[in-house]
Amino acid sequence: MNETLLFALLDLTGTFVFALSGATAAKQRNLDLFGIIALAFLVACGGGIVRDLCIGAIPPTGLSVWRYMAVSILAVLAVIGAYPWVARLAHPVRFFDGLGMGFFAVAGAHKALLHGQNVETAVLLGMVTAVGGGVMRDVLLNRVPLILQKEIYASAALLGAGFEVAGEHFGWSTQWVPWVGILLSSGLRQLSLQYGWQLPTFPSRRGHQPPD
Amino acid sequence: MNETLLFALLDLTGTFVFALSGATAAKQRNLDLFGIIALAFLVACGGGIVRDLCIGAIPPTGLSVWRYMAVSILAVLAVIGAYPWVARLAHPVRFFDGLGMGFFAVAGAHKALLHGQNVETAVLLGMVTAVGGGVMRDVLLNRVPLILQKEIYASAALLGAGFEVAGEHFGWSTQWVPWVGILLSSGLRQLSLQYGWQLPTFPSRRGHQPPD
Amino acid sequence: MNETLLFALLDLTGTFVFALSGATAAKQRNLDLFGIIALAFLVACGGGIVRDLCIGAIPPTGLSVWRYMAVSILAVLAVIGAYPWVARLAHPVRFFDGLGMGFFAVAGAHKALLHGQNVETAVLLGMVTAVGGGVMRDVLLNRVPLILQKEIYASAALLGAGFEVAGEHFGWSTQWVPWVGILLSSGLRQLSLQYGWQLPTFPSRRGHQPPD
Repeated sequence: MNETLLFALLDLTGTFVFALSGATAAKQRNLDLFGIIALAFLVACGGGIVRDLCIGAIPPTGLSVWRYMAVSILAVLAVIGAYPWVARLAHPVRFFDGLGMGFFAVAGAHKALLHGQNVETAVLLGMVTAVGGGVMRDVLLNRVPLILQKEIYASAALLGAGFEVAGEHFGWSTQWVPWVGILLSSGLRQLSLQYGWQLPTFPSRRGHQPPD
Repeated sequence: MNETLLFALLDLTGTFVFALSGATAAKQRNLDLFGIIALAFLVACGGGIVRDLCIGAIPPTGLSVWRYMAVSILAVLAVIGAYPWVARLAHPVRFFDGLGMGFFAVAGAHKALLHGQNVETAVLLGMVTAVGGGVMRDVLLNRVPLILQKEIYASAALLGAGFEVAGEHFGWSTQWVPWVGILLSSGLRQLSLQYGWQLPTFPSRRGHQPPD
Repeated sequence: MNETLLFALLDLTGTFVFALSGATAAKQRNLDLFGIIALAFLVACGGGIVRDLCIGAIPPTGLSVWRYMAVSILAVLAVIGAYPWVARLAHPVRFFDGLGMGFFAVAGAHKALLHGQNVETAVLLGMVTAVGGGVMRDVLLNRVPLILQKEIYASAALLGAGFEVAGEHFGWSTQWVPWVGILLSSGLRQLSLQYGWQLPTFPSRRGHQPPD
């Protein structure tokens, strides 16, 4: 398959599953049709919009390219029209969500570098691309963002973004670097789900543990 | 009346009633004087600031033009000094809020087009101008934004912004397009309030309804 | 001591104590290691990032200069590894937090003026630099921001930013203006803590008080 086509496909897949997650959360909280579309769109595009503002890519792609809104609405239709079906697919949806996360992290870091940002900015904004939308969803639904609490999600995004940035920085071949970045990111996410890996927390009673 | 004057008047009226809404909500939640001013200002100017960031209009007008802050503080004084009076005026305030919303949606879309944005961006940012401040108010007051839950508000803003963008896109006369946009927007809002129109929600029990 | 060095030292001290506050709040809410680092960094750099977006300073310094992230992680290590020690130091930490706030307000206003912003924008963004990160912390932890509720914090930041802007506007000597600004800001904060000063609130029962 053509590489550009594959990238576009991954981009739309990521957008679609991210929008599914927003629409599902909004429906479960009983938001109305507008609220469901708004959350679907924000989860899918919110992280990328923040990244674009931070690198000066005006206007943000999520706002100016109609297909992101179209894909978000498609996801909303799926959630509304076929909820039991989507709910039964929770497992594959989570798999594709991990894939989308890895892709967004790598693509976000790549876009930041393209716009002349330095290594640190690119890694951070790659992560923001992947997790920003989910944070917005949780803030709007009035709960502490999940990714701050336990799951290995943002750290997996950091891994993918970091690998992509290292690859471009050291001039490794663009033929395989993005794919390995996506694989590392999504793979770590997948494994952490499978084996219940979590980052440590530091409850006050037990005090004094080492930071790692 | 002169058209520019009428526009400026609508802009200040919209700012004032939006600030009233922020100040009232803040006072009811027992915030202090600073919190009340901050919320009044954010409801009035928050949406426009986000729009300006997204179209690269630096610095955002809400921050750089002193009269927006002045009008916000005026609204705070009204809410603090004459609360029972403002509360009795809830009905007219809601009417002017609808008018302000329509105006902000149309003016926001117009500004986005002026800055060279495409059709989709302009429609979305027109809506953001009209509803962004209210969303910030709700997030800061720690509740799920009202406009995501039931009222026809953001959809009315979309209608007005969409009409304005269509008008400019197809070159209809600027003599009447903005006014019709505002009328459509505020009218739909007013009718939905009067007749209790709401967008559908999709509670889990009933499942499977069609999306519209 | 060299002035530039002193400024850099204040900047890092402010960053460190702001990060301490974010990390402590995150640990108390039982966030995981990633959540603690994210909150430490956001409290320290979030306000400055918003300021940079509003003045068009792309990319935001907090993202592109690695030492801010490094100092944030240092603060996290302190909070995790020596929590009882940090908790015992609550008093000095609060003192340095007030100092950091004053410095951030003055430095933020100065940067806005440097980027050609007008007086009002600079005062507002000076305050945003000082308080924006704390607001993000509270929003992410799902509570109404403290600074909107009672403590004299944002108002003290306004005072410092306002003095700095007045000083640059009227051409007073840059040898003492920033220092007096920081002193005013931090001093007001310190006094308000010591004597329990608060801004007025306006509970509904008592109605009609004068706004000041």
